[in-house]
Amino acid sequence: MPSRKELANAARALAMDAIQQAQSGHPGAPLGMADMAEVLWNDFMAHNPANPRWFNRDRFVLSNGHASILLYAVLHLSGYDLSLEEIRNFRQLDSKTPGHPEYGLTPGVEATTGPLGQGLGMAAGMALAEKILAARFNREGFKVVDHYTYCFVGDGCLMEGISQEAASLAGTLKLGKLIVLWDNNGISIDGPVGGWFSENVLKRFEACSWQVDEVDGHDPEALRKAIARARKIHDRPSLISCKTIIGWPAPSKQGKAESHGAPLGEEEVEGARRQMGWKYPPFEIPSEIRLGWDARLSGQQAEKKWNKLFETYAKAFPAEAKIFEERLKGEFVPEWRDEALELARMLLAEEESSSLPLSMRAFSRKVLGALCRNMPALLGGSADLTASVGARWEGARDITPDNPDGDYLFYGVREFVTGALMNGLSLHGGFIPYAGTFLVFVDYAKSALRLSAQMNRQLIWILSHDSIGVGEDGPTHQPVEQLSSLRSIPGVQVWRPGDALECIAAWIGALRYGDGPSCLVLPRQSAPNLNRKRMVLGEIKQVAEPTPTEKILLTIRRGGYILRECKKGDPEVILIATGSELSLAVAAAEILEAREVQVRVVSMPCAEFFEQQPVSWRNAVLPPAVRARVAIEASGMDYWRKYVGLDGAVIGMRGFGRSAPMSVLYQYFGFTVENLVKTAEKLLKTR
Amino acid sequence: MPSRKELANAARALAMDAIQQAQSGHPGAPLGMADMAEVLWNDFMAHNPANPRWFNRDRFVLSNGHASILLYAVLHLSGYDLSLEEIRNFRQLDSKTPGHPEYGLTPGVEATTGPLGQGLGMAAGMALAEKILAARFNREGFKVVDHYTYCFVGDGCLMEGISQEAASLAGTLKLGKLIVLWDNNGISIDGPVGGWFSENVLKRFEACSWQVDEVDGHDPEALRKAIARARKIHDRPSLISCKTIIGWPAPSKQGKAESHGAPLGEEEVEGARRQMGWKYPPFEIPSEIRLGWDARLSGQQAEKKWNKLFETYAKAFPAEAKIFEERLKGEFVPEWRDEALELARMLLAEEESSSLPLSMRAFSRKVLGALCRNMPALLGGSADLTASVGARWEGARDITPDNPDGDYLFYGVREFVTGALMNGLSLHGGFIPYAGTFLVFVDYAKSALRLSAQMNRQLIWILSHDSIGVGEDGPTHQPVEQLSSLRSIPGVQVWRPGDALECIAAWIGALRYGDGPSCLVLPRQSAPNLNRKRMVLGEIKQVAEPTPTEKILLTIRRGGYILRECKKGDPEVILIATGSELSLAVAAAEILEAREVQVRVVSMPCAEFFEQQPVSWRNAVLPPAVRARVAIEASGMDYWRKYVGLDGAVIGMRGFGRSAPMSVLYQYFGFTVENLVKTAEKLLKTR
Repeated sequence: MPSRKELANAARALAMDAIQQAQSGHPGAPLGMADMAEVLWNDFMAHNPANPRWFNRDRFVLSNGHASILLYAVLHLSGYDLSLEEIRNFRQLDSKTPGHPEYGLTPGVEATTGPLGQGLGMAAGMALAEKILAARFNREGFKVVDHYTYCFVGDGCLMEGISQEAASLAGTLKLGKLIVLWDNNGISIDGPVGGWFSENVLKRFEACSWQVDEVDGHDPEALRKAIARARKIHDRPSLISCKTIIGWPAPSKQGKAESHGAPLGEEEVEGARRQMGWKYPPFEIPSEIRLGWDARLSGQQAEKKWNKLFETYAKAFPAEAKIFEERLKGEFVPEWRDEALELARMLLAEEESSSLPLSMRAFSRKVLGALCRNMPALLGGSADLTASVGARWEGARDITPDNPDGDYLFYGVREFVTGALMNGLSLHGGFIPYAGTFLVFVDYAKSALRLSAQMNRQLIWILSHDSIGVGEDGPTHQPVEQLSSLRSIPGVQVWRPGDALECIAAWIGALRYGDGPSCLVLPRQSAPNLNRKRMVLGEIKQVAEPTPTEKILLTIRRGGYILRECKKGDPEVILIATGSELSLAVAAAEILEAREVQVRVVSMPCAEFFEQQPVSWRNAVLPPAVRARVAIEASGMDYWRKYVGLDGAVIGMRGFGRSAPMSVLYQYFGFTVENLVKTAEKLLKTR
Repeated sequence: MPSRKELANAARALAMDAIQQAQSGHPGAPLGMADMAEVLWNDFMAHNPANPRWFNRDRFVLSNGHASILLYAVLHLSGYDLSLEEIRNFRQLDSKTPGHPEYGLTPGVEATTGPLGQGLGMAAGMALAEKILAARFNREGFKVVDHYTYCFVGDGCLMEGISQEAASLAGTLKLGKLIVLWDNNGISIDGPVGGWFSENVLKRFEACSWQVDEVDGHDPEALRKAIARARKIHDRPSLISCKTIIGWPAPSKQGKAESHGAPLGEEEVEGARRQMGWKYPPFEIPSEIRLGWDARLSGQQAEKKWNKLFETYAKAFPAEAKIFEERLKGEFVPEWRDEALELARMLLAEEESSSLPLSMRAFSRKVLGALCRNMPALLGGSADLTASVGARWEGARDITPDNPDGDYLFYGVREFVTGALMNGLSLHGGFIPYAGTFLVFVDYAKSALRLSAQMNRQLIWILSHDSIGVGEDGPTHQPVEQLSSLRSIPGVQVWRPGDALECIAAWIGALRYGDGPSCLVLPRQSAPNLNRKRMVLGEIKQVAEPTPTEKILLTIRRGGYILRECKKGDPEVILIATGSELSLAVAAAEILEAREVQVRVVSMPCAEFFEQQPVSWRNAVLPPAVRARVAIEASGMDYWRKYVGLDGAVIGMRGFGRSAPMSVLYQYFGFTVENLVKTAEKLLKTR
């Protein structure tokens, strides 16, 4: 039987070898945390290497993602489909062992990490997911949802503000099955942390209602006891400070920042091997040590046992089991489509009789209600702007610390961890999270949204108050550059609906987009229902016999379409608009038409979707030959050059907004029908 | 003599009246914090209403900026140039009383606030500025730098993660003259905060080495004592929890979220007037109450006294006084220009003999050293990536908690508060802050950078590791959308130099740009010195008899210029590039030229600067008639449509990066000379 130290040293050796081979990587943290990992994985982790997607597995998040090679070593040794060849190919193109852990690429990697602090937020999301699902589905004698979430964090994670947002919320929500191990090595890239990180971390977490503990991070028995203690406390998350030596056992670099981010070099690696008594050549792991790590049999048994439990549960509670399985598969209750269509039908009928402006936020909330009713996986919330953004539908049930069986969460004024928590909820499975804040404050959460996109997570941000239409709150609250910032993130779909029908289409689009996050960008102000009599419908293939309503919705869902075709022949000028500026474009078109100009109005509620349409559709909507194009959006201008080119014009914001009533600002900044008409006419004249 | 309550109620009345008048605003916090403001301003604040820029004034930051009308009321009452008319015009276009406080618009407003939590970070920056300057300039018997920084924060500020970053750093740096008053009303927009904010805030701040205290926020005497206590503690910042009732004395809305963000309504305002015994009509303040607030005389005396002190100081320490005054005026030591020019001259000489690739980060550090030596106002730092980004020049002196007399700061892994702290340092005066991190992590600090731009703060971010050139660290660390995100913020100048000379020009550009923040975007990889024999020089007006070196640098500083003109006549195709892709464009041009193509290479190191050039320059660089244009940048593509239009091509990133060695990735993603040549030729063929 190999000793615990030998088991840990196997991971150390693999880590050092892989980094040397790649001539790139971060040895310090993997070496320092190897004992923590060994104890956690060999004594506690419930997981099945043969099925990394087994639902009831314990979750593990490596928040200090630069220690990736430690995780790869552990996954390899415990029997995941991650070969030694992959370890040898650390950090190479097309390997399963990239520089930082990437969800979806490597079996057993539960989250993409690296941007510090966010792993802690995602782990909190996973622990919350477990708590909510347990409350929803567990029954006396049937703990079908019952696992821990473990997380490793480094000093850097704890310096980042998001660590506090996560700690505060996790403490408030009593996430007792969240257990965090802090690699307390006292070293960050700039050196010993005393000069910039002197806080009493344990006291801080205690202040947030965490259970805290401190152990020697190189003492397996102490680690085991601490984790065992933490597992018994169910009303508070746990933080275990593990005092470690970064880079141990590298003879001269251990305990120093030099061991953090660059290969140790042959000499240090040799010395480290000597110091830990590791006598095997690079990449060689003796079979008895492999056996000590191998979790395949125990994992298989664990899953089998759970499968049996679930079978009995399904017999006793067939309805619950059905919903449970649907949620895990991410399936929708089929009725949702009908509800959405019914809403749209009603709107279209209303359009005939009235075109009264409608609060888009209120309407979005109505759509949300229609959808949520039929989608138990939807989990809403807001960063303290519940009513303002219309995030809570009328039937929502609040999640509280003592009653987690709900579908609406109060995140507090914490946009960043809202994003990270949503990522964790989504990664866990069983949830399509959505949350609302003001568009301008998505800046605080930007990096979490980027991770959502990198991990292809389906989640939805409701981002209201989307322009100078915010009015009196002024420039700090008026987005200018946020739309183009969101549009620049690969894989994010940004919807900016211009009327209620587009709002329905946007929600459906977001719910149908399973490969990444969607943003629903809504104005503060109201919007009229737009006349669609001259809308050009697309060919519908998705539905066999589409109703008129479906035809409209599915055309909108192409992301860009002709809302109002010109009277005859080809358009002389095309007006492109989104959101609250769309009705200005329609009004301008009416005036231009009265002046005998052939004008087309193109609505572009989701440019990302539009870009995915066949070139025939895109060229039909924006014929390459028509160069007199005016784009109008109460936002930054550069983005629209993509559609108007060098010959067109953009009416947009050149700088920040101002504090004044909305209508004054629209006038002041030139978002008027008159300006649009004038700009279009000028374009036509100069041609 | 009016009572303290009457004084506070005057502010309350003005706040309510202004909000009613505007039919817009946030009454809850101003009403709740009026007593705190009254005690602070009437008993403690050292300030001179007649000169809001008096250097040695106490600083005040309203971090919960939605309470703006309270600050305006206080400034108005204490005698600032802020008339009653302005109060009446609260939240109207062109008033000095916008929805949230805006620096530069309203005398006495020290910072633009509203995005929650950032005010605390800025206040910490101001307190740090005071501490550094005091250590640098004060002499026995001459405390020429000696003021407090006060800050009001709300629950929302303390929920935001940045509050922890600020608290931790302020505690570590022992900012003893930072005094924070927390409007502890237990209400945020979603209601009583218990469900999402249950942490023990005082304990958290204690864990960060703060002095903490708790008082009744409506008890002037208790407030006075607590502030007096805090002022005596000089080795720790202070947090005073002021228990208040939001919206007091509104009869039915006090203590409720309803009082937060909408006018109270006539009835509530009437009731509030009754409850606080305020018998005057709207906007009327009796003269004895005005007298109680008036700080003009005491302010004048305070400044006079300080002026005298400084006069004596200047006689005793003329050298120090001179530098002190230069720093406050933001002036440079004239020698800096020569040093920069000398560096450039040396480079140009080297170019003749060698074109060895040069580490841009190392070179940037060299430039920085040459400049810092002559600019005592430059205060550097990094969010724990000092060496990686080349932020610390060799002569830098570290700022430590016990020796603040330095010019280099270790921010720790806290990008967001790095941005906020720099804002505070800059707002205080005496500093041009710069700090470094990886480009991808500027996402964490985005909102602070936005505020820098809104406040026209001159500060510099060094953002290295600027593309897939990051290599093995993979997509989490490889910026894709960050460049376009930065470029979309109004007022931010983004420099992405392509060789060492451009790096010098970028630094000079950043130091010359006094109206906002600059970003210096640098690659991880090295760059060759580019041949400039066919560069087209601009007309130089700034310098009487420019040297050849100056001509080159000043041309680069136009932001976009012809680096390599075609052989004869007009170009058939223009290649536009920045940064690490610039040398690819030059190599591609050589090949195209060998194939008889007339090709021009345009370098665009700072598009924002280029946009500010006269149209003649812009059209000379990018002639409107030449539509065969290819832009290449290892970044998102949409931005470049602005310069290549619908007819050109962009070689850029369509998605996220990958983990692999840099050279592999450049090949993989098509950032090669061959691809550039092919793309250009294809464009020429299809025309």
